[in-house]
Amino acid sequence: MAIKHSFLDDYSEGADPRILKVLEDTNLAQEIGYGNDRLSHEAVRLIKRRLRAQHVDVHFVSGGTQANLIALAAMLKPYESVIAVSSAHINIHEAGAVEATGHKINAVEGTDGKLTPAAIQRTVAQHTDEHMVKPRAVFVSQATELGTVYSKAELGEILKTCRRAGLYLYLDGARLGSAIVSKASDLNFADLPLLTDIFYIGGTKNGALLGEALVIVNPVLKENFRFYLKQHGALLAKNRVLGAQFVALFKDGRYLDLARHANLLAAKLSEGIKTSGYGFLSPPTTNQIFPILPDAVIDRLRRKYGFHVWAPAGDGHSVIRLVTSWATKEKAVEEFLRDLPRA
Amino acid sequence: MAIKHSFLDDYSEGADPRILKVLEDTNLAQEIGYGNDRLSHEAVRLIKRRLRAQHVDVHFVSGGTQANLIALAAMLKPYESVIAVSSAHINIHEAGAVEATGHKINAVEGTDGKLTPAAIQRTVAQHTDEHMVKPRAVFVSQATELGTVYSKAELGEILKTCRRAGLYLYLDGARLGSAIVSKASDLNFADLPLLTDIFYIGGTKNGALLGEALVIVNPVLKENFRFYLKQHGALLAKNRVLGAQFVALFKDGRYLDLARHANLLAAKLSEGIKTSGYGFLSPPTTNQIFPILPDAVIDRLRRKYGFHVWAPAGDGHSVIRLVTSWATKEKAVEEFLRDLPRA
Amino acid sequence: MAIKHSFLDDYSEGADPRILKVLEDTNLAQEIGYGNDRLSHEAVRLIKRRLRAQHVDVHFVSGGTQANLIALAAMLKPYESVIAVSSAHINIHEAGAVEATGHKINAVEGTDGKLTPAAIQRTVAQHTDEHMVKPRAVFVSQATELGTVYSKAELGEILKTCRRAGLYLYLDGARLGSAIVSKASDLNFADLPLLTDIFYIGGTKNGALLGEALVIVNPVLKENFRFYLKQHGALLAKNRVLGAQFVALFKDGRYLDLARHANLLAAKLSEGIKTSGYGFLSPPTTNQIFPILPDAVIDRLRRKYGFHVWAPAGDGHSVIRLVTSWATKEKAVEEFLRDLPRA
Amino acid sequence: MAIKHSFLDDYSEGADPRILKVLEDTNLAQEIGYGNDRLSHEAVRLIKRRLRAQHVDVHFVSGGTQANLIALAAMLKPYESVIAVSSAHINIHEAGAVEATGHKINAVEGTDGKLTPAAIQRTVAQHTDEHMVKPRAVFVSQATELGTVYSKAELGEILKTCRRAGLYLYLDGARLGSAIVSKASDLNFADLPLLTDIFYIGGTKNGALLGEALVIVNPVLKENFRFYLKQHGALLAKNRVLGAQFVALFKDGRYLDLARHANLLAAKLSEGIKTSGYGFLSPPTTNQIFPILPDAVIDRLRRKYGFHVWAPAGDGHSVIRLVTSWATKEKAVEEFLRDLPRA
Repeated sequence: MAIKHSFLDDYSEGADPRILKVLEDTNLAQEIGYGNDRLSHEAVRLIKRRLRAQHVDVHFVSGGTQANLIALAAMLKPYESVIAVSSAHINIHEAGAVEATGHKINAVEGTDGKLTPAAIQRTVAQHTDEHMVKPRAVFVSQATELGTVYSKAELGEILKTCRRAGLYLYLDGARLGSAIVSKASDLNFADLPLLTDIFYIGGTKNGALLGEALVIVNPVLKENFRFYLKQHGALLAKNRVLGAQFVALFKDGRYLDLARHANLLAAKLSEGIKTSGYGFLSPPTTNQIFPILPDAVIDRLRRKYGFHVWAPAGDGHSVIRLVTSWATKEKAVEEFLRDLPRA
Repeated sequence: MAIKHSFLDDYSEGADPRILKVLEDTNLAQEIGYGNDRLSHEAVRLIKRRLRAQHVDVHFVSGGTQANLIALAAMLKPYESVIAVSSAHINIHEAGAVEATGHKINAVEGTDGKLTPAAIQRTVAQHTDEHMVKPRAVFVSQATELGTVYSKAELGEILKTCRRAGLYLYLDGARLGSAIVSKASDLNFADLPLLTDIFYIGGTKNGALLGEALVIVNPVLKENFRFYLKQHGALLAKNRVLGAQFVALFKDGRYLDLARHANLLAAKLSEGIKTSGYGFLSPPTTNQIFPILPDAVIDRLRRKYGFHVWAPAGDGHSVIRLVTSWATKEKAVEEFLRDLPRA
Repeated sequence: MAIKHSFLDDYSEGADPRILKVLEDTNLAQEIGYGNDRLSHEAVRLIKRRLRAQHVDVHFVSGGTQANLIALAAMLKPYESVIAVSSAHINIHEAGAVEATGHKINAVEGTDGKLTPAAIQRTVAQHTDEHMVKPRAVFVSQATELGTVYSKAELGEILKTCRRAGLYLYLDGARLGSAIVSKASDLNFADLPLLTDIFYIGGTKNGALLGEALVIVNPVLKENFRFYLKQHGALLAKNRVLGAQFVALFKDGRYLDLARHANLLAAKLSEGIKTSGYGFLSPPTTNQIFPILPDAVIDRLRRKYGFHVWAPAGDGHSVIRLVTSWATKEKAVEEFLRDLPRA
Repeated sequence: MAIKHSFLDDYSEGADPRILKVLEDTNLAQEIGYGNDRLSHEAVRLIKRRLRAQHVDVHFVSGGTQANLIALAAMLKPYESVIAVSSAHINIHEAGAVEATGHKINAVEGTDGKLTPAAIQRTVAQHTDEHMVKPRAVFVSQATELGTVYSKAELGEILKTCRRAGLYLYLDGARLGSAIVSKASDLNFADLPLLTDIFYIGGTKNGALLGEALVIVNPVLKENFRFYLKQHGALLAKNRVLGAQFVALFKDGRYLDLARHANLLAAKLSEGIKTSGYGFLSPPTTNQIFPILPDAVIDRLRRKYGFHVWAPAGDGHSVIRLVTSWATKEKAVEEFLRDLPRA
């Protein structure tokens, strides 16, 4: 039997149909290339309004690795490094993209996938002279690789640590929508320009065909940023394609609606799994959840559902990762729960 | 009065509507990410068939600068360089993307924007030891930055020169469609796998929303190529978006049809301009043409038409660049010719 | 009172006087530049003889960081990484030199500063696809940053692991002399061409003014290596200066004699320290030893002796690092031991 | 018959014997590593005094390519480029060292090997947006690759052009001594801190074993410069070796005395060659001269003298390059002139 429902990731489908609609409706209008089109301008206007921040710069890029490598290339001098948890996307899953631009990642242990002020301070304290790299930026993800989220207070503490140590704070928002609508975090759109130097709002994993919106808050980082985009092949001739999608996502709150759908179904999944008597690797709070199931059960479920087996959990059990998205069907969740035997 | 018709470039519109249709039709099917989806596989199949080459590898990237920088990064060791004409896109218009990956471009003078075997040989002969870089690749564009094209024989001579000197031959096909249907060149799709080591088929400038198809012929260059894509942020989670577009472009000859439309209108433009008594910088053969007009005429035309003023031509004249595309309207061409006074 | 004797490092003095003598004796002979001089050729001949390996290539560079960054740049493709213990010089004390050439270091925990086959295997197993870097080299130091040494069997096991996993093995021999004459290791000069792909013999820390001899065993790594030297500014016009020194070091066994002197005095120091009732962080076996002393004792010793306080050891104690060299005076060791109170 | 006298270059011998003497005299004093030794400090003091500039920073590196690549790496952001004449050392003879740090060289035509303000202005004017690199530094050599020199007024004009365009001015002084004592230039040591942002004083080609003194004038470029040194492997553990040599060169005017010897013998050579009836590629003014001789004469001279054949000059003639140094013997010059037949 073929896989019937995929919980593999949040990019298995195309785009929210209303996004395709905007692409269609604007398709034949002649626009200036490379981001100076009316669609990109309108998207920037809508995002600034949502962030309640007129002073930020917004640029669109096609994916998350591209956003990360370009933002860090623009932040760091050749001898400067970025601090991140060892499970961070930039440290593990970007094929050395940051190192390829010449920079070391100071990987430190996290707590539930989250970076702590203490780990930042310790890393800064260890780097004392020119025989070592000089930490200059901090990388956090909201939500993290483990599906957890920072609260406003937690991110505020990290920012304070950064300010004291002269570090930029960069936030990877590949799954920012899911984090914002999560009940576990009180951190909203309008907090981000106050609590970071630069961040991105993920489109690819929240209903767009492709595209992320890089938001630069710190004026030092704004200067000549488009050169970095061009140099890394990120400046699309038809940037309108990214602009149009963010217009569709931000003109009426759709961005968070799509994330809400994902979280709702993830919550339904995790409730059902708990009810059936199973535990989790980390508290399920966003659209990625990590239940611990018996290997025999996992083997059976795999025949019908797509998901990643994350790590062995001992005693004949493993952690699996289930991801829901704007496109996940309620029926898929219900079937999964029906097919899951009680512990 | 606002600009009424733009001849600025071939990426002013969105996509050929039939491309949007494929995106729509396949939108909700669940697919594997990062290029392992059925749409990308089908696009690869169609492209290989069109090239009459089963042994090539095909990868999709989002833009031309990205294609160029990744292809060259994969071809060159740290001390190796690429030979190109000084007007080449990689030398002037990519913000130092190739140098940012660590490589020197040996820029040489071209003839009508084209590289010659003699210039390649001379450059190789000048690089004799480890105090200098070691040329290892040759970069050509088909069509070139000046709208000219290589014939099959010309490219064959360049390949022979490359083979003798141990150089890879890379062809930038941002405007490959226009070159193939040009009456000035006998070089077809099926010739490219025989006459290059690696090349790309441009989508962005020929009717796609975005996307270029990199085709690797030389087996040495195939190995681990996806690592380069990922490291430079070019591996899209929803690679299906690129796959679907190339399916639409290659399933029934549409790719060349779109280019034919562009060339037809460019030819109409150049015929009319000639008839009105004006000359050209280089023979008009593809969808970019470079007429030489009096500055007063140019000033008047600019109020109504978008185009670039390319270079001063002396005596109160300048070269302008007019670009047509798959989306250019016949009416726009007719109006332009009507508005052009006789010389 | 000023510092009277320094145990800070093994590069506090100039050069063994017999090295200066060779520089003087050959000073006015006219020689070809950039390594093609008779002194460099003679040094290469002597080193090959000592290694009992005619098939290796030998290049001279001015320092250890330079040796490491160039060797790794020559070994690794852009997406490839090097595995090292987290205490490795390349990971901590080279200001991100390896990352600046574009490569990630996969830092793993060591045992007494030494890398284990298990850690290598684990790292290779974790790197499964193009979303991650691809480990391609292993970095070890002999002696290690903690003064410990690999035995012939241990290095043989590491090599076997490398061979199975398709990894190059690189050995940093900044303190190779001290390791070879150490009683704790049976690994000799002639073993190195059999047990590594590339390594360097350190001159700076063993009596030379400056200079390290990079020895390339694996033929794949030999090709065009001088381009890497030149590109990183390591090809000295008067390479003879390095050649002459290695002639002096290798013409009659002086290299190991100088190291023997350093080890002898380190052993005398560690014996005395043990006799006085103190322990060590790691077993003292080379010219770097790490005794654990009470902080009050350390404070008193610091007024007269130069050394680094390495790390807190709890309970009012700290680890200090004492380094001896070819130039350390017996008198300095005796005074130190006299000034050290019994535990 | 073997080569009897070499005019190949100015680094065929070791060091001025008085330099070796300082190395010997200071050899066994214990010093702090990495540039914090008393010799390096004294050398810095002497150089500042000679430059009549207390506010500059001075760092020592082992060679010219290293000086150039590090200075430019510290000056340029990733998207910024450096303007130089196409015959510049960085453009031809450093194996792509500057590109390897990620930067494009904007190569322009020079006049007698010298850069002109007009060429700088033109290059800046051509670079208008983020599709191109952004010129940010200008590279000049004093003396140039063709043995010519800038006057104070010429360098002043270049500086003025740089200031207006927001460019740093960097001067490569590999042969600075010869330029300063040349009768063709009025540019002295004390002018350099007023007319450049950063420059280096060459040791290798003027009597040192190795070593160049990088002098940073512009405060913006001083910050964290040692990180760049370390990252590129240029921070020598025994930096004292460089310090001691510059002490010997600068404590009593020896630096210029050595250069004067070289220029005197070059002048004697060129006078004799002129008297014999031959012309030159460029006016002979420093220690590199470029006479044009018949090929048959060249062939005969080559059996006895070392020199480079620079370029064909037509009509059975070629340009050769003759280089004198601090160590060239008067006898060698006299013999050469005796062996040169009249035209």
